[in-house]
Amino acid sequence: MTAPAQITGGFETGGGTWRFPASKPLRLDSGAVLAPLEVAYKTYGRLNETKSNAVLVCHALTGDQHLASTHPVTGKPGWWSRVVGPGLPLDPERYFIICSNVVGGCMGTTGPASLDPKTNEPYGLAFPVITIADMVRAQAMLIEALGIDTLFAVVGGSMGGMQVLQWAADYPEKLFSAVCIAAAARHSAQNIAFHEVGRQAVMADPNWCGGAYLKAGVRPEKGLAVARMAAHITYLSEAALQRKFGRELQRDGLSWGFDADFQVESYLRHQGASFVDRFDANSYLYITRALDYFDLAAQHGGVLANAFAKARGVRFCVLSFSSDWLYPTAESRDVVRALNAAGCRASFVEIESDKGHDAFFLDEPQLDQTLRGFLAAQAQARGLNGGLA
Amino acid sequence: MTAPAQITGGFETGGGTWRFPASKPLRLDSGAVLAPLEVAYKTYGRLNETKSNAVLVCHALTGDQHLASTHPVTGKPGWWSRVVGPGLPLDPERYFIICSNVVGGCMGTTGPASLDPKTNEPYGLAFPVITIADMVRAQAMLIEALGIDTLFAVVGGSMGGMQVLQWAADYPEKLFSAVCIAAAARHSAQNIAFHEVGRQAVMADPNWCGGAYLKAGVRPEKGLAVARMAAHITYLSEAALQRKFGRELQRDGLSWGFDADFQVESYLRHQGASFVDRFDANSYLYITRALDYFDLAAQHGGVLANAFAKARGVRFCVLSFSSDWLYPTAESRDVVRALNAAGCRASFVEIESDKGHDAFFLDEPQLDQTLRGFLAAQAQARGLNGGLA
Repeated sequence: MTAPAQITGGFETGGGTWRFPASKPLRLDSGAVLAPLEVAYKTYGRLNETKSNAVLVCHALTGDQHLASTHPVTGKPGWWSRVVGPGLPLDPERYFIICSNVVGGCMGTTGPASLDPKTNEPYGLAFPVITIADMVRAQAMLIEALGIDTLFAVVGGSMGGMQVLQWAADYPEKLFSAVCIAAAARHSAQNIAFHEVGRQAVMADPNWCGGAYLKAGVRPEKGLAVARMAAHITYLSEAALQRKFGRELQRDGLSWGFDADFQVESYLRHQGASFVDRFDANSYLYITRALDYFDLAAQHGGVLANAFAKARGVRFCVLSFSSDWLYPTAESRDVVRALNAAGCRASFVEIESDKGHDAFFLDEPQLDQTLRGFLAAQAQARGLNGGLA
Repeated sequence: MTAPAQITGGFETGGGTWRFPASKPLRLDSGAVLAPLEVAYKTYGRLNETKSNAVLVCHALTGDQHLASTHPVTGKPGWWSRVVGPGLPLDPERYFIICSNVVGGCMGTTGPASLDPKTNEPYGLAFPVITIADMVRAQAMLIEALGIDTLFAVVGGSMGGMQVLQWAADYPEKLFSAVCIAAAARHSAQNIAFHEVGRQAVMADPNWCGGAYLKAGVRPEKGLAVARMAAHITYLSEAALQRKFGRELQRDGLSWGFDADFQVESYLRHQGASFVDRFDANSYLYITRALDYFDLAAQHGGVLANAFAKARGVRFCVLSFSSDWLYPTAESRDVVRALNAAGCRASFVEIESDKGHDAFFLDEPQLDQTLRGFLAAQAQARGLNGGLA
């Protein structure tokens, strides 16, 4: 079910939608079962003969599988085109790179906007609550379906980093290395609080219709835009906002009204408005819920190190950004401490940056260097040569 | 027009609503004029014979004149009952303490819910945009109407602290001392961003009706609750949220749905729901706008020290809280640096606290001690004895 590979931007791209029939259901942490399951994914580069060069990239809350190729809705470059491409740290001439849309998402993988086979209508709130572990379980099914036993690396930032940690806990035998960027082993009270504001904003919109807006032919765009605006502030540092916008005005002088006087207001409004064009409101509810439920230590008797007890063979790289206040460095340090306690090999780098959480998407040379260096060392250890091994 | 003084909780309380006729309009920074103007205020204690013991307390964004007496809507103690009372730092047995509802507010002072004399309907969006300086101008009118030439002190936290700074810039000759707590000389890009989210949440609510909800007989409760929830997160530090709530659940086990699973969710929902009972949505828009427009340096040729050029006779105390990320200590330091540059006397204390911005409302002994010490020293300098001088 893989779409034919194409050459784009100097490297092969592939992917498509993998359909798991009802006989291969996704068993969820909630006890529910999702079947049939579709997983939409993209691939970059080619799997080598020994199948030892596969890299899974896990996307963040509002990301998707369009990692390094044009986004079909926005027409913009993939969200990590800065990092994935020829000559870049994740080089499709060396690695077979896979990125799949998470369960609960809205870009092709089964989510609340998919048709519920029981009713032949969009699931809406009939969609089961999912977890980070459920997302990872679906990815593991995809990887197996693609005939890959072991991933050379699993890499992700933010929610993607949480999936990386969950992979290490649940499938350590399938990993050679793991890169966790700007993430945490659990959602803090403040993280939950911000998500709850976003969910309440969506659910306050009368067009949300108790979750059944697709059936009603409307969309809770205003509520979702407010949710995105609130979340977006948490992705940037105060310093970055000050540097980018300060108190700069949109026009000469104040409006003495409620128009967007300040550039930062206009920027946020734009972030909200453009988000609703590409994202499903219920997916936003479900994925933020999965994040809030995430607590890797709690899954392992309250001791985070226990989560990594079987991951001693995995080589870890943990990265944080100094100005990230959504998932501060202290939370990455907790992960590293647990990895050390479990006897795992872990590199840790706190990257000095004033760009906040979103630094991992942005031009941050130290991130590129660290990724490149770590992956090159693992490639050598794995016996991957410069080309396709 | 002062209501008869009453004895409450061991001290005299008074106040009422001062009506300035159309012949005494409030001239606003926007160029508009507000007339007639009503200013609702409360007083605690008695003005001494030399009228030298008057203290004006300026309230914060969602505060009001009910400083140290029961709130008429919520039935709760006044918002600063911890600080204002017999034996407390602001002792009504020593000082005549005045607190008035700001212009644009919704507790009796003229605001967007007041009747527009032109239409005899609530102003709604016909209310003019107001500034911190407009609020202070109305307070100065009230103080003059009460027959007071000089304030022994003007005291305020958060938006109240901004009013304190504006008093020092606009009426330095009327001040003996000034206490600015947890504030800043201007709103940062991040501050503006959070306010814009709140305003968009209110305006996204169809019950907002373009501002004319009172006429329509509805209220944008859901939008205002979301706005309050987002703002409330900024009033608390991450550490305080973690300490108070962590990931504690409301019930045994997760709901696997969108109920308030976590205590922090339930707390925020309660904050939102209770706020809408006591606050007007349009007042929230206007007052947040006034805050965003606040930039004391910009009013004085871009040099903050210029704002304090005539305040050399005023004794300042500037206080910040170490975990306040809404108005961080660095912004209080900027104020102190400007006061020093202007040749003003300024004490500065950063109080170690993990309670965040809201520390100034909460049990924070070092705040009480600092206030008590500073005011006692100023009282001595002013020749106020222990009782009514």
